[in-house]
Amino acid sequence: MSDSRPIGVFDSGLGGLTVAKELFRLMPGEKIIYLGDTARCPYGGRSDDTITKFGMQDARFLMEMDIKMLIVACNTVSSVALDHIASEIKEIPVIGVVLPGARAAVLRTAERKVGLIGTSATVRTGSYARAMQNIDPGIKVYAKACPLFVPLVEEGMADHDITRLAAQYYLYEMIDLGVDCLILGCTHYPMLMETIQGTVGTRIQLIDSALWAAKEAQDILTALHSLSDVKTGGLGSSRFIVTDLTHSFEAQASSFLGNQIPAIEKIPLENLAK
Amino acid sequence: MSDSRPIGVFDSGLGGLTVAKELFRLMPGEKIIYLGDTARCPYGGRSDDTITKFGMQDARFLMEMDIKMLIVACNTVSSVALDHIASEIKEIPVIGVVLPGARAAVLRTAERKVGLIGTSATVRTGSYARAMQNIDPGIKVYAKACPLFVPLVEEGMADHDITRLAAQYYLYEMIDLGVDCLILGCTHYPMLMETIQGTVGTRIQLIDSALWAAKEAQDILTALHSLSDVKTGGLGSSRFIVTDLTHSFEAQASSFLGNQIPAIEKIPLENLAK
Repeated sequence: MSDSRPIGVFDSGLGGLTVAKELFRLMPGEKIIYLGDTARCPYGGRSDDTITKFGMQDARFLMEMDIKMLIVACNTVSSVALDHIASEIKEIPVIGVVLPGARAAVLRTAERKVGLIGTSATVRTGSYARAMQNIDPGIKVYAKACPLFVPLVEEGMADHDITRLAAQYYLYEMIDLGVDCLILGCTHYPMLMETIQGTVGTRIQLIDSALWAAKEAQDILTALHSLSDVKTGGLGSSRFIVTDLTHSFEAQASSFLGNQIPAIEKIPLENLAK
Repeated sequence: MSDSRPIGVFDSGLGGLTVAKELFRLMPGEKIIYLGDTARCPYGGRSDDTITKFGMQDARFLMEMDIKMLIVACNTVSSVALDHIASEIKEIPVIGVVLPGARAAVLRTAERKVGLIGTSATVRTGSYARAMQNIDPGIKVYAKACPLFVPLVEEGMADHDITRLAAQYYLYEMIDLGVDCLILGCTHYPMLMETIQGTVGTRIQLIDSALWAAKEAQDILTALHSLSDVKTGGLGSSRFIVTDLTHSFEAQASSFLGNQIPAIEKIPLENLAK
């Protein structure tokens, strides 16, 4: 058995391309339909109501594309609205990035002290702490919202003194608190891996949720015998759809995808917001 | 003659409250209807098409409120789409923040060298340079996009080492270039006045576009004999409408308005996006 339909992936913007990149690496036969709501990103500072509404609109748009699985690549939407989206979409598997990242951290922490960094909404919901403590109630979780990290990445300043100062400002207390794992709970943060590791030191292991979400997608598709057996997957046969074609799009897309710039389609925001 | 109808003011978010504050100070008898599109802010990194569409939606919403004047308090929309908005709305005066700020700078620069800081879109359009050079073609304009300033203000970090480092990064070249006026071409930047002045030194005069836009509104309403003669203007009789009620709303609104928090109405984004 096999299933050649595409995997649907969405994010508020382009950060979710880190998930797409990992999906291509793990499953080169798969096609992806990626949706980035670049006309309304970022979602991380908005209210739960608005995040839920936007996330449902993104999900419904992809559901009309005959996808075999939906991946909510946005940590903010995964934290606020995954249950809501999964309760509305029962036809196919729906996964987010929070549970895979949380599971990986629980497996890796020796001290049972895990740090989490993310947007204000991701931290506010306590989604990662709940997911980890459901597995191991004794785990201590220290969460810190790092709202400057997304604009720093989007300005191409990953390796800049301002970013190092911001990393110190946000992260020094994680070292004092004795965490031995730090979850990068936002798809932009893997771009800051070097700066973050340089700030917290090598004793603290960084967990990239995007990577573990892609692995979970592979496990589920394998278990369902739904991997594609067509040999024409990958970037060229996938679709990348955005709601706004911004001036920094190419630079950002290539940084998230690793220097590969996909052909892009812009759709009117009205196609989502209905 | 007098006109007791309200003045309509919109911004992508809450930064335009700095214009509202100045309107109340200059014209305490006036009522304002303020619209902040907090579900889709910030506009400054989006494409011209999207900025124009969102700006027109904001303008049309206010036009249904029987206003006597429309103020585009958003520098990004003023730079990209003011002509378009003014060509669609002919019934009442429509003003932006660019021309008032540009005029003030031309009057104040002795060296005829003016610096401009703003969002990526505001800088990209060259709107301020055009406006100044229309008045004095010999004026030299040096523009710099400062995309980190808005998130720094919104995180309440106006007085922080990271903000001072960002100010140095963005502004040191303005000193080297010999400008004697620096236009704050974004309604968030007046919140950084002290840090910016501390960075560029007192030889460089800061021009707050919000303040000059309010003054222009007063001049026009006076000339048209359209000031209100009702004595019940101000914060209490005005309306403040947003498309998303975010968690940081109160802190931000009070910082822009000067510790006064208005009663706020949230409307569905669909009321704009139609």
